[in-house]
Amino acid sequence: MRGATDTGAEALGAAFPEPLDCGDGRQLVVVIDTLVEGVHFAAGTAPADVGFKALAVNLSDLAAMGADPRSARASVCHPGGGEGPWLDAFGEGLGAAAARFGVDVGPVVTTRGPLCVTVEALGSIPEGRALTRAGAAPGDSIAVTGTLGDAGLALAGVAPAAPDDGPWLQARLARPEPRVEAGIALRGLASAAIDVSDGLAADLGHILGASGVGARLDVEKLPLSRVLAGNLPPERAWELALASGDDYELCFTVPPHRLAEAAQRLRALPGGVTVIGIVTAALGLQCLRGDGRAFQPAPGYRHFS
Amino acid sequence: MRGATDTGAEALGAAFPEPLDCGDGRQLVVVIDTLVEGVHFAAGTAPADVGFKALAVNLSDLAAMGADPRSARASVCHPGGGEGPWLDAFGEGLGAAAARFGVDVGPVVTTRGPLCVTVEALGSIPEGRALTRAGAAPGDSIAVTGTLGDAGLALAGVAPAAPDDGPWLQARLARPEPRVEAGIALRGLASAAIDVSDGLAADLGHILGASGVGARLDVEKLPLSRVLAGNLPPERAWELALASGDDYELCFTVPPHRLAEAAQRLRALPGGVTVIGIVTAALGLQCLRGDGRAFQPAPGYRHFS
Repeated sequence: MRGATDTGAEALGAAFPEPLDCGDGRQLVVVIDTLVEGVHFAAGTAPADVGFKALAVNLSDLAAMGADPRSARASVCHPGGGEGPWLDAFGEGLGAAAARFGVDVGPVVTTRGPLCVTVEALGSIPEGRALTRAGAAPGDSIAVTGTLGDAGLALAGVAPAAPDDGPWLQARLARPEPRVEAGIALRGLASAAIDVSDGLAADLGHILGASGVGARLDVEKLPLSRVLAGNLPPERAWELALASGDDYELCFTVPPHRLAEAAQRLRALPGGVTVIGIVTAALGLQCLRGDGRAFQPAPGYRHFS
Repeated sequence: MRGATDTGAEALGAAFPEPLDCGDGRQLVVVIDTLVEGVHFAAGTAPADVGFKALAVNLSDLAAMGADPRSARASVCHPGGGEGPWLDAFGEGLGAAAARFGVDVGPVVTTRGPLCVTVEALGSIPEGRALTRAGAAPGDSIAVTGTLGDAGLALAGVAPAAPDDGPWLQARLARPEPRVEAGIALRGLASAAIDVSDGLAADLGHILGASGVGARLDVEKLPLSRVLAGNLPPERAWELALASGDDYELCFTVPPHRLAEAAQRLRALPGGVTVIGIVTAALGLQCLRGDGRAFQPAPGYRHFS
């Protein structure tokens, strides 16, 4: 997920997101995120894609908690105010994502202002079963859904050698598929989970920090799409997979005795699953090649921490 | 409430806000709204006031439904990104409003972008008891909480004759008090309700439209604060009370046989209550003086419809 500060709310002792008891053995979780033109999407991005993605990124945050998505609402600032073709197309994309992932959305709240879109999504989880970032333990396997780095390749403006791959690559950036079913399948199995919207290294780092552990990754096991692997040298592809972000896959840790069951459940779902490393007692994130040599991303690589 | 379009979501048939069954005899309602610098608050507004107001305006929308507020989350776009003194002060104001109205708030989600603030708030209501805009019937009384036009006076830059009144007036604009208790007290009594954030005439117009009725208001009964009444001629004060907006009082309709009980309940609460008119079968909104002459606001008055 994108940046969350403890500004102000820390004084109130609130967890984020804070599950709300619902009285029927389930808890509610609510997530909220903003996409800004020129920051999170380029000027001129198709408004239907903005609508789709604005909901998808929030559903990805819900998926990382293992929540069933229920409903969502959008508040849009647009220079033209409350109506026009941009908003119509935005609403179509939002509606398409809502239909695709089985979520109810209310009418779009609009106001005049610089173009940005905030979506809030509400999900529910059986009480006490929400996945968190804090449960990873040394010896747990680290796994991810889907493939990593595709959105980064699209953002980098690399045109795939095979022109037919272009639309697929653009869709990985513009219409991400939140791993809702995978998150639900991981309830009771994963010891920690997060979505890798900020890039695997940064988001896995959040799990490591919250859990007080470190990790060792085998970069040669990072799941790369045929398109990414076929259009970049391995080192560059690994950099994107580790750090480019905007992937909306889940990264999770799972204790050894649960690994087989987790893998079996997730293999049947879209995107599948790949084990990429192991949680260590030693703090820090080590990235190794298959032969044990350290993999060093290019200095100053964006987001890499 | 600010503009809500049916963009996109209409195709899904979703009501706004759509109550969610919670399984314990209560329903959840979620509201969301965005405040934009230069549109909803002036550049240079104290960030703590922005934080307070961003939550308060959403709690006002919940109050208009008769909901008990439960929790809220904020997503902030700020040119400086995720930290700094602006966000610290914003969080303090948000936390102050949360403490004042008994709401849990999560940590503030932040992103880089033009300054705007979106807050989403969640409330609950006993099943089937949510106040709506659609139940007003001819013969119902029309009433409002508090006083109207104060924020408009502050926005107009009028300095009160008594300097001591200045801070009170600024607070009416900067730190509105959503009528949460009044909304709860009106459950089962009011036939329709709305908050008058866009101005009484416009927001009462939403009730009339949704209910298929009209209304007659006695402008001499409009509740004016001592500060507003003491610093403007009556006609100008009525214009502000009818149309300036940003007041965050509740306007509601109540059937004749419920009026005494509603008035009794609300008189005991902050802001009190004033009956200002009656619902009519004839469509349209008539504004009359006490002697029956029509009151015509100055032509082109902002928002007046």
